[in-house]
Amino acid sequence: MAVVVTETKRTELALVDALGEFGVATIHEAQGRTGLLASRLRPIYRPVRVAGNALTCEVAPGDNWSIHVAVEQAKPGDLLVVTPTSPCDDGYFGELLATSLRAHGVRGLIIDAGVRDVAELTAMNFPVWSKTISARGTVKETPANVQTPIVCAGAYVRPGDVIVADDDGVVVVRREDAQRVLDASRAREDNEATKRELLSSGALGLDIYAMRDKLVQRGLTYVTDSHE
Amino acid sequence: MAVVVTETKRTELALVDALGEFGVATIHEAQGRTGLLASRLRPIYRPVRVAGNALTCEVAPGDNWSIHVAVEQAKPGDLLVVTPTSPCDDGYFGELLATSLRAHGVRGLIIDAGVRDVAELTAMNFPVWSKTISARGTVKETPANVQTPIVCAGAYVRPGDVIVADDDGVVVVRREDAQRVLDASRAREDNEATKRELLSSGALGLDIYAMRDKLVQRGLTYVTDSHE
Amino acid sequence: MAVVVTETKRTELALVDALGEFGVATIHEAQGRTGLLASRLRPIYRPVRVAGNALTCEVAPGDNWSIHVAVEQAKPGDLLVVTPTSPCDDGYFGELLATSLRAHGVRGLIIDAGVRDVAELTAMNFPVWSKTISARGTVKETPANVQTPIVCAGAYVRPGDVIVADDDGVVVVRREDAQRVLDASRAREDNEATKRELLSSGALGLDIYAMRDKLVQRGLTYVTDSHE
Amino acid sequence: MAVVVTETKRTELALVDALGEFGVATIHEAQGRTGLLASRLRPIYRPVRVAGNALTCEVAPGDNWSIHVAVEQAKPGDLLVVTPTSPCDDGYFGELLATSLRAHGVRGLIIDAGVRDVAELTAMNFPVWSKTISARGTVKETPANVQTPIVCAGAYVRPGDVIVADDDGVVVVRREDAQRVLDASRAREDNEATKRELLSSGALGLDIYAMRDKLVQRGLTYVTDSHE
Amino acid sequence: MAVVVTETKRTELALVDALGEFGVATIHEAQGRTGLLASRLRPIYRPVRVAGNALTCEVAPGDNWSIHVAVEQAKPGDLLVVTPTSPCDDGYFGELLATSLRAHGVRGLIIDAGVRDVAELTAMNFPVWSKTISARGTVKETPANVQTPIVCAGAYVRPGDVIVADDDGVVVVRREDAQRVLDASRAREDNEATKRELLSSGALGLDIYAMRDKLVQRGLTYVTDSHE
Amino acid sequence: MAVVVTETKRTELALVDALGEFGVATIHEAQGRTGLLASRLRPIYRPVRVAGNALTCEVAPGDNWSIHVAVEQAKPGDLLVVTPTSPCDDGYFGELLATSLRAHGVRGLIIDAGVRDVAELTAMNFPVWSKTISARGTVKETPANVQTPIVCAGAYVRPGDVIVADDDGVVVVRREDAQRVLDASRAREDNEATKRELLSSGALGLDIYAMRDKLVQRGLTYVTDSHE
Repeated sequence: MAVVVTETKRTELALVDALGEFGVATIHEAQGRTGLLASRLRPIYRPVRVAGNALTCEVAPGDNWSIHVAVEQAKPGDLLVVTPTSPCDDGYFGELLATSLRAHGVRGLIIDAGVRDVAELTAMNFPVWSKTISARGTVKETPANVQTPIVCAGAYVRPGDVIVADDDGVVVVRREDAQRVLDASRAREDNEATKRELLSSGALGLDIYAMRDKLVQRGLTYVTDSHE
Repeated sequence: MAVVVTETKRTELALVDALGEFGVATIHEAQGRTGLLASRLRPIYRPVRVAGNALTCEVAPGDNWSIHVAVEQAKPGDLLVVTPTSPCDDGYFGELLATSLRAHGVRGLIIDAGVRDVAELTAMNFPVWSKTISARGTVKETPANVQTPIVCAGAYVRPGDVIVADDDGVVVVRREDAQRVLDASRAREDNEATKRELLSSGALGLDIYAMRDKLVQRGLTYVTDSHE
Repeated sequence: MAVVVTETKRTELALVDALGEFGVATIHEAQGRTGLLASRLRPIYRPVRVAGNALTCEVAPGDNWSIHVAVEQAKPGDLLVVTPTSPCDDGYFGELLATSLRAHGVRGLIIDAGVRDVAELTAMNFPVWSKTISARGTVKETPANVQTPIVCAGAYVRPGDVIVADDDGVVVVRREDAQRVLDASRAREDNEATKRELLSSGALGLDIYAMRDKLVQRGLTYVTDSHE
Repeated sequence: MAVVVTETKRTELALVDALGEFGVATIHEAQGRTGLLASRLRPIYRPVRVAGNALTCEVAPGDNWSIHVAVEQAKPGDLLVVTPTSPCDDGYFGELLATSLRAHGVRGLIIDAGVRDVAELTAMNFPVWSKTISARGTVKETPANVQTPIVCAGAYVRPGDVIVADDDGVVVVRREDAQRVLDASRAREDNEATKRELLSSGALGLDIYAMRDKLVQRGLTYVTDSHE
Repeated sequence: MAVVVTETKRTELALVDALGEFGVATIHEAQGRTGLLASRLRPIYRPVRVAGNALTCEVAPGDNWSIHVAVEQAKPGDLLVVTPTSPCDDGYFGELLATSLRAHGVRGLIIDAGVRDVAELTAMNFPVWSKTISARGTVKETPANVQTPIVCAGAYVRPGDVIVADDDGVVVVRREDAQRVLDASRAREDNEATKRELLSSGALGLDIYAMRDKLVQRGLTYVTDSHE
Repeated sequence: MAVVVTETKRTELALVDALGEFGVATIHEAQGRTGLLASRLRPIYRPVRVAGNALTCEVAPGDNWSIHVAVEQAKPGDLLVVTPTSPCDDGYFGELLATSLRAHGVRGLIIDAGVRDVAELTAMNFPVWSKTISARGTVKETPANVQTPIVCAGAYVRPGDVIVADDDGVVVVRREDAQRVLDASRAREDNEATKRELLSSGALGLDIYAMRDKLVQRGLTYVTDSHE
């Protein structure tokens, strides 16, 4: 009962790459604090940053068969996004699959499960965000869906949505929002440059952001330590 | 109903810095196995060690407003200690706040919650111990207490207590105990130097610490493997 | 009521070292997907790999006394494997014990609990896989068993079984299976070299492993995205 | 930037109630092993079963304001489904909100966070599935989306999808699949009645399901214990 | 180095009992959302409610010796509050200790660790809030502090502070705040009675609390589902 | 490569039933504080107690096929003990399998994974200790070992070892130790009856167990509260 959807839409790579110049935190803010995958997904090495088109893939617990199916659907610029149909920490992915994905232009892996061969993946410079690291391999008995919409680490991800991942985590940008989020990210970063300069010179956020009145309204009071 | 306490006492920086020459494990032992913050607080990069006066700060869940309030209370040599009023893994703190804190002489951050911009914080060499890493930002709607006594990661911390943090974790030393703990740490480290030499030459702890009799009294017996 | 078993069997070091040339994932597969310790055990630094004879040791919660007892039983080529009799995250082990173990030829530590002095252990290049890092030390009040069969992180480990550990985790190979698993590991690695070459040239696992028919039998179907 | 969507579609209540006659496990199987919310959601009392139209609601961390907004959108037969925008264990919901929801015909609550007043909710017979129980209340500072598609406990839920919940957990059935899943659930339950009778008379699943050949093909062998 | 503090202050029992008429959630709100112990502490049976003077006790990991020491310090109306010096899930407490405590007028137990004999404790109607249930017993080798201020499940508790516990969790009220919190709890409960009546008749919180304007100011907008 | 071992030894049922008259905590103490399964295994209803011969069974992640194989190996008085080969929370077991097991005289289930149909299992009075409750079913693709020694929830269990389980958890008694542990359990319970009487009359454990001298030797001191 598993399905592979072919010829799915993707986001234009120029747009993907432009988004990839911003950090995950910036993009998350720029699109209204949405789209983050759960913070249990961590990179296997740091520092790292990558952006790509989501190539989505479900896997049965302890079974990585559909990742092999997904490779055939890959296009250059994709980022493989894998979610197990029930929680599983096995090592679904290692150096051989990374070699295969790289040969098809895939830029990295996001997986809400375990990976292995992390020394080799690090040496290959193949970026991976995973829930855990485990040497425990998987079988190939039960196929699962490829290139369907999935929930990965608590986020809804469709094939061809943009994924950006860095040291801080992973965020998904909906295909149709990519241009708007790119613009908002640029605006946000410009604004931060000004703030950074002020703050590094010792100015207080309380003043820069004009917070003092609102703090008093919300009940903040100052008292002097009586040193009792 | 939030309060900022001003003019709180601090520990003399010479004393703080002298404590900072010892590791967290040594200090913890030297003060009678007390004062450790929970081990879920981990440094964002290693190796690292820092000591400072606790600048304490509560934050509402998903709301980092009071950190901005805390910056104004900072003095050189402080270490910001942040605890959420209910458990939260959001990324309360990033590169802009670190820039601001550094401009006021703050040496680092201890937070029982999440942080973001960890690539930038690492590049800045700004030490942070946190419960997690998360790109998810926070709002500024609810102020909370600054420079009051807090419970952070299971430890009771007062403004101006000494915090020492390294690869092993974070420990708090009460202001009034700082000199005594410093002396005990020195004594402990001197004692360890002797032990280290003996052990590296192959002497057994069983003999160095004269443990054999007590082990027998507590019921230890030796049997030979029968290789059945 | 604690027991130390002396003169336990060990695996020949030539065999241990030969197994140590393979990764944990390979060995795990080669022996039929068995023998892995739980993935909560993680190395304190990476990359790292070590193999040795299991020197087994139980410890009471918050009490590392029996590790001192274990040192006397050590032989060159051993790897200390420690399990608490009830779950505990304290820092049972630090630089002094590592110095002592190294003086007796022990190659590293596997512990389903916490360790401390991780900066020093890293500087010493002493490999450790632990459940956590904690500065919290332990007492010496209650002895526990040394060189008896134990369950460590969910795996059954007997003295003299072979332990291999690397970035991916820790695996135990039963003494009597060591030669067979070594042969199977070699065969597996030879086979992977061929696969790696094919995959890096763009061949699909679907074809290399002849998976297409079986996938159809198991219900996989392909549909084209309607772009609704 | 929060949105309330009004006049959303719902599933016909006759269909909802018919689905509510089946257990969550049966429905999950009947719709191809999809749609389960994470098993961390547990009922506050047992036994219990309820079905309803999803009334979806996001909440900010530590802030239950949008639940008040959601009440106005309720229709008889709804089941409130609440997800925090970042993980939070606070007690978002208690007896007063349950009183209000009940007055508008809402049948219960699914929440990936904490609740409180569980003694009162139990006495009221108001069914709740939550991630935890916590007396910690919330503020009303930040509105969030109501009646938009959400991800709750790892499942994608749209307003008007059918939710069924019982002692085993919570499942979502897509509005457009409700009739098909109802039919499949009926078929499954009829089939199980026959099996139950056979099994209770001592027949083996190995024979009833004709598993023996397939087990041999997959490598199962029988050996006699040598009682060594 | 363990200390027992004798003749510690207690809160007048009339005040303790008056506070015990309110739920934990009410008291928590009434004292400004402070004083809750972490929600990992759960009652071993429900429904249940108790209030008492904190009789504080630390325990070493896997060692319940100081609970025996604490019994001698008990006075009628006390509630024993136990915290391990490092996290531990062992079963520190069972039916014999409950029998002893009850003989001295102690009303129940709060423990951030495990308990056992829960069937017997339930049959005795002896209320216990614990982190877990475990049959694993403890030793008596290391004494720890009794009747000193402690941190238990993240809250700072001093001997003679008031503890109230029910199905929702556990809260501590500082001795000097007890009367003020009692008054505030009464006021809160009176206010809730009015609200309950309005809400049960179908009035909306949006109107009762006059939230509509503030929601618009904070950016809430209403849109109609386009049923695309 | 899965194996079923037939004709394994069992412990005499008279001995099993005699052990079943004692609680898990008592047996655990009586056999020297060993043999407990991890406390994450909890009964689906309480109160409950059962004893039986271990019928051991491994399962692949998300795959309950070997439970069907195990049923054929069952004998009256057995207790099924199931462990997944990698951690998994799926609902491996429900009412149909319980019906089948009961028809063959099996007394209950211990499983380090999830179960479902808990309302039905409770109504049937079929005792189950599990790691979690989950409606998520499993497939039947990969057989695993039946009646081999296993590690379940951290304990080593062999076919025919005695399992006792109650509200406090689960303990395994080795077949060859069963008579000795039975005798020790009886002795322990007799001793406790005397203690219970003394304690309920107000005698202190400090005196009954003659602890005072040892406490002083270990450094316990008494101080009077200065009420500063």
